[in-house]
Amino acid sequence: MTEHPVFTWVENVCVIYFSIEYAMRFIVAPRKLAFARQILNVIDLLSIAPFYFELLLWICGISGENVRKVRWAFLTVRLLRVLRVIRIAKLGRFSPGLANFALTIRKSKKQMQMVGIVMMTVVIFFSTLIYFLERDEPGTKFTSIPATFWWCVVTMATVGYGDLVPVTVAGKLVGSGAIVCGVMVLALPITIMVNNFMQVVKLREEQIVKKYAQQHGDQV
Amino acid sequence: MTEHPVFTWVENVCVIYFSIEYAMRFIVAPRKLAFARQILNVIDLLSIAPFYFELLLWICGISGENVRKVRWAFLTVRLLRVLRVIRIAKLGRFSPGLANFALTIRKSKKQMQMVGIVMMTVVIFFSTLIYFLERDEPGTKFTSIPATFWWCVVTMATVGYGDLVPVTVAGKLVGSGAIVCGVMVLALPITIMVNNFMQVVKLREEQIVKKYAQQHGDQV
Amino acid sequence: MTEHPVFTWVENVCVIYFSIEYAMRFIVAPRKLAFARQILNVIDLLSIAPFYFELLLWICGISGENVRKVRWAFLTVRLLRVLRVIRIAKLGRFSPGLANFALTIRKSKKQMQMVGIVMMTVVIFFSTLIYFLERDEPGTKFTSIPATFWWCVVTMATVGYGDLVPVTVAGKLVGSGAIVCGVMVLALPITIMVNNFMQVVKLREEQIVKKYAQQHGDQV
Amino acid sequence: MTEHPVFTWVENVCVIYFSIEYAMRFIVAPRKLAFARQILNVIDLLSIAPFYFELLLWICGISGENVRKVRWAFLTVRLLRVLRVIRIAKLGRFSPGLANFALTIRKSKKQMQMVGIVMMTVVIFFSTLIYFLERDEPGTKFTSIPATFWWCVVTMATVGYGDLVPVTVAGKLVGSGAIVCGVMVLALPITIMVNNFMQVVKLREEQIVKKYAQQHGDQV
Repeated sequence: MTEHPVFTWVENVCVIYFSIEYAMRFIVAPRKLAFARQILNVIDLLSIAPFYFELLLWICGISGENVRKVRWAFLTVRLLRVLRVIRIAKLGRFSPGLANFALTIRKSKKQMQMVGIVMMTVVIFFSTLIYFLERDEPGTKFTSIPATFWWCVVTMATVGYGDLVPVTVAGKLVGSGAIVCGVMVLALPITIMVNNFMQVVKLREEQIVKKYAQQHGDQV
Repeated sequence: MTEHPVFTWVENVCVIYFSIEYAMRFIVAPRKLAFARQILNVIDLLSIAPFYFELLLWICGISGENVRKVRWAFLTVRLLRVLRVIRIAKLGRFSPGLANFALTIRKSKKQMQMVGIVMMTVVIFFSTLIYFLERDEPGTKFTSIPATFWWCVVTMATVGYGDLVPVTVAGKLVGSGAIVCGVMVLALPITIMVNNFMQVVKLREEQIVKKYAQQHGDQV
Repeated sequence: MTEHPVFTWVENVCVIYFSIEYAMRFIVAPRKLAFARQILNVIDLLSIAPFYFELLLWICGISGENVRKVRWAFLTVRLLRVLRVIRIAKLGRFSPGLANFALTIRKSKKQMQMVGIVMMTVVIFFSTLIYFLERDEPGTKFTSIPATFWWCVVTMATVGYGDLVPVTVAGKLVGSGAIVCGVMVLALPITIMVNNFMQVVKLREEQIVKKYAQQHGDQV
Repeated sequence: MTEHPVFTWVENVCVIYFSIEYAMRFIVAPRKLAFARQILNVIDLLSIAPFYFELLLWICGISGENVRKVRWAFLTVRLLRVLRVIRIAKLGRFSPGLANFALTIRKSKKQMQMVGIVMMTVVIFFSTLIYFLERDEPGTKFTSIPATFWWCVVTMATVGYGDLVPVTVAGKLVGSGAIVCGVMVLALPITIMVNNFMQVVKLREEQIVKKYAQQHGDQV
């Protein structure tokens, strides 16, 4: 599957524009190392890097059908294509919503870690249980515990694609337990998240009011 | 598929009744332009317009099988049929629940915009990621990023139809991330919505109590 | 499919026991009409009625294979079998949880009506929209608006069985809208419900404390 | 399906290590009975027991293909494999998150029992209803009420695998009712759970602050 040439050209122009912008910001930065280590700048660099790597491969004669032959190049190109997604994170610079969201995540980090361990334990528990109960059924898709993880995550979050479904009575009983547990366990991080988000939004609004008051030289 | 003639006649009678009602309200309105620009009146007009357009097409000899031949007419008729749904919004005039709901949406507008940008970014992020991870699988349904959007929305809202499911291990890992992110991100607008709805309901009740007190000439 | 004879006998014994109990309570009741109109007694009567109706049919020679021939008898028997489920409601007499739940529902009635109208409007809106967008696809399962209601309810509650899935791009866009709307709209009754349930539980606990205090002749 | 020999060896080493650790803790324990009855020690014992049972079977010549012939041995081995999952609960010793979670469950016990009865009644009610409505459809998967329980749990928790879906109009109506009821009923235990979790987390933090203050000999 190849991309439309127009998209390729739009991408090339964008990448060159971003490259020049990054280079100029790097040149005028007083402390080069501090600049290069800032998260937003790392994202900028990562979002233009894939283009230059593919260019390098193309210069070396590894492009199109050749890429499939050289296995390491094929895998790297595939990884780089995925990395291009990181460019979306650049939007965070312009959206207060995304900034609030990022702040919420940073604030919820410790609590999330705690809940994350609980969730992982529950997932491992139910995955193992369902695997041992379903593995001996003919034509089962629960072929290994890691494969069963996918079922467990999909079930506990109540997504329920239906690509893997327990068929034994014991499996269905354990599955029901996993569903109820999942609903309960997932409610905890949601509540923590929502509480922290509300605090962040409130804090932001207070900051804006304060800033406004300072700019106009009077207390609100 | 054609509709039963009884439904057609009921519709015709209703449309004529609504047309006369709209015409009379328009005639007695002191300021024609202000009247025509009111949202509820625009809905009234849009809900009777499709009937007259189809009538016009029928006069021009474009109806039944002919419609399929004239492509633009076919598409317009199809669009108009969809527009007929707008008539449901007329119910808002009579239901306090719908009015409260509309007020909640208007009140949540700014916060929703903020969260909406976050959600869109997250959807774009995971869609792109899963597309690049799944596109090379034989028989995959993740054929383009816009097509993958559907998967992402269905997954993050925990609907999970199962028409598109990641099959690679990397895809399942990213899918799990999308599920967890979706549950978290969707909880935020829900909370905002619920809070605003509660405030609107409280305000309404206070207004009703006040009105009642004024009508009976005493303070409650 | 026939039931095991043991189950039939257990059912017969239970029904006869319940019948005698109902008859005796009816005989000793001072006001027959008031007794017969109480909700819990109506449930008692409805839960034993099917048995006597089937007995009546059997006496008239309508049973087993004969039932299928007499269409009205077949349908009535089927309806009566469903009515037997009502017996479960008798559990409410013994469980404080079920009683609290029933009280919550009675308390939420007015608010639920309001939200119910909103939900029904939204369901009608999206069902009609998706029907007009998907009806012309070959092999579509969106064959009528009532049939599409099922899709709409399943989607908006984020159940997502996957038996009906929109396939056109416009349908998927509207489907995404339905999902987001559904998540928002369903959050409102849940919040109302939860608030009322919390109040009911609190009230009950206070009542129990009060009762205890009265029985022991001192104020807590 | 056999496990990789490396995993078998890692398991054997772990089990022997845990056995020695358990034996030594048992020997130094002043009161043997009290030690053996502690929940965490029971988990320790259960997590090493399967290994010794399989060893015993192997000594008796019941292993590999022989196991399938001796039916009771086959079933016991299968059960023991499942029991190995209990080892995960040992993680609770080291994770404050899991300890908080366990405390929340213990605290929510009484309320959960109450809500659990409500949920079970609702599940039985809708399962029976849908079974009687769908059982006469050709090729239906609703073959018995216990089998229908699975559908009911999966539907009410909004998982919706799609392996069982009502096809009759009456079944779809009842299904819609089950969905709405499920969403409402499941919201109650979630709220109770979240409230209790918040209290537990708050309590823990206060305990940590208190401990810190005592250790440093001054009031914070």
